Amino acid sequence: MTATPFYIAGTGAALPGQPVDNAALGKAFGISEEWIDLFVGTRTRHFAWDLATGEPTHTLSDLAAEAAAHALAAAGLDAQDLDFAILTTATPDQLLPSTVNDVADRLGIDHLATYQLQAGCVGAVQALDVSRSLLAAGHRAGLVLAGDVTARFMDARRNAVSLPTEELVNYVLFGDGAGAAVVTDEALDDAVRVCGLIHRFVGLGRAPGQIVDWNGPVRRAPHRQMLREDYKAIEDHVPAMAAEILWELLDTTGWSREDVQFLLPPQLSGRMTARITAHLGVPEMREVSCVADTGNTGNALPLLQLDRLVPHLAHGERAVTITVESSKWIKGGLALEKAVPSGLAAAGDAEGEPSP
Amino acid sequence: MTATPFYIAGTGAALPGQPVDNAALGKAFGISEEWIDLFVGTRTRHFAWDLATGEPTHTLSDLAAEAAAHALAAAGLDAQDLDFAILTTATPDQLLPSTVNDVADRLGIDHLATYQLQAGCVGAVQALDVSRSLLAAGHRAGLVLAGDVTARFMDARRNAVSLPTEELVNYVLFGDGAGAAVVTDEALDDAVRVCGLIHRFVGLGRAPGQIVDWNGPVRRAPHRQMLREDYKAIEDHVPAMAAEILWELLDTTGWSREDVQFLLPPQLSGRMTARITAHLGVPEMREVSCVADTGNTGNALPLLQLDRLVPHLAHGERAVTITVESSKWIKGGLALEKAVPSGLAAAGDAEGEPSP
Repeated sequence: MTATPFYIAGTGAALPGQPVDNAALGKAFGISEEWIDLFVGTRTRHFAWDLATGEPTHTLSDLAAEAAAHALAAAGLDAQDLDFAILTTATPDQLLPSTVNDVADRLGIDHLATYQLQAGCVGAVQALDVSRSLLAAGHRAGLVLAGDVTARFMDARRNAVSLPTEELVNYVLFGDGAGAAVVTDEALDDAVRVCGLIHRFVGLGRAPGQIVDWNGPVRRAPHRQMLREDYKAIEDHVPAMAAEILWELLDTTGWSREDVQFLLPPQLSGRMTARITAHLGVPEMREVSCVADTGNTGNALPLLQLDRLVPHLAHGERAVTITVESSKWIKGGLALEKAVPSGLAAAGDAEGEPSP
Repeated sequence: MTATPFYIAGTGAALPGQPVDNAALGKAFGISEEWIDLFVGTRTRHFAWDLATGEPTHTLSDLAAEAAAHALAAAGLDAQDLDFAILTTATPDQLLPSTVNDVADRLGIDHLATYQLQAGCVGAVQALDVSRSLLAAGHRAGLVLAGDVTARFMDARRNAVSLPTEELVNYVLFGDGAGAAVVTDEALDDAVRVCGLIHRFVGLGRAPGQIVDWNGPVRRAPHRQMLREDYKAIEDHVPAMAAEILWELLDTTGWSREDVQFLLPPQLSGRMTARITAHLGVPEMREVSCVADTGNTGNALPLLQLDRLVPHLAHGERAVTITVESSKWIKGGLALEKAVPSGLAAAGDAEGEPSP
């Protein structure tokens, strides 16, 4: 498999409404603020629904369209410049039409290829993986969108304190949001080059670490649990998988750990992220995390981290993104480098050169 | 966009249980058999659930794994030869894990890239579009899976006769099934070459023709209609869109209508397919349809038609697939040609030549 490089020309993020802190969350669901602080280590999150009334305030397409507008502005491109759009989510607004097409409609674009991936925490890397191939096959520019909305899984009218921990955790782990990235086949100004990408299912024979289920109008098994985490399996496996991804990214790029300035680790919760980074043992890399402020926003996370990274990444500096999907165990990773402007490019360095 | 050719090396299909005829369907739901014959023009369909008890009998992953096994056998490949797997559906078994990963587990494969598209009637073409790019980017072989299961939308305990027509139609249009195709970057024996592919969102500013919705455990708008067709809009627009796709495929391949032996038209219902083919006005092309026997199986349809086409397609013969997704209006199409075996290839014809 040829590792064709491609570029992230701009990023954007969208988080609905005001941050909800642990005091407000605890009060709404009858959960102890201290337990949230201790067990999850997340301070705030945003919800696309009103904590008081339970009414939805934002759809996924609202958030994705907002993030897309930011990413296009950052890239200096118009929506009309896009050859394709990919949205990845576990929680589409509807099953059909695909939410990506609602977003395309809102961006005012037509006559382009659109794709929607059904995925979890590795979704953004999967969408970038598809982008890489679409760009390698001849497309010039595309939009990657990633996000999730919890509105169908958290009941604002329910006192959650009586729930078993494996269900209760859903009320304190997650948040809503969307991220966006404009990808191109050549380096625009200040683009981030994707030098390496890992996307690999590794779940053969392994039980799922997370299940998210859905109903149609016919509820054939009405009492099954719709959202489950095997938190023990996640704690057991994710740190080791994260380390394997890091070393594989370094191996395939030929970078040493000292060559990498920034680490974008998995974002399950504030507490799990701290545990993972401790296990990775690369204190020389500066951590770029968002989960403590945003909660676990599922598909959005890698793009929210990237949006935070970009202003800090100087020309020639490098970062690695590590993602693990516990649903059925998928590894994802990105090796990123801020492209050197064409005037400064070293001989033999293809970045910024005009395309043939 | 470079139109890199790629190949379909084998196909497979899976339909659950015994065919359900209009008499049995009408009896189960209190609908007149004559009305089904007249309004839908579909004779039989298969269900992944028991019409008598409502209990599920097959999951989407059951059907997709069965279709995959047939396609791999037809291609003469092992699951271990695959570099990637893509499943497209509107009705995944769960939101997470993605059903494609359950299928990978059942096929005994690991350490490969997997993708799941959320899509409708154009899904199989979208998945082949992604495949084309993955193959162009360096992958050698992949698996495309497409299917849908109606179990969450049809209530076996409900008398449907009192429903308004726009809901009632859901009980008579659809069926369950899955199709599979093995795709490769070079021509294996008896491969079908994909010479042209159309995949384009054209829904800007247009109301959806179909909506399929879902619930989590929290049902925020419990009385909304979960499955809607704007059958009038579909009747008005699909025949004209189908004609546009046909002529664009001929235009981009440089084929004349006399060069094409087989037509694989959209499969909304037996009646709609007849209306579309009449509108296309290409009686010299032999129609390959399955909807009258399978019902509208959503994502599966283009691969079910392809599976029926393959035994009849002689070397050098051509076919066109036309798909329209009415959800938010997407055009899809394939221009297909049975590859000429390498020993017979004309000079300058790349089919069947060893790869560099």
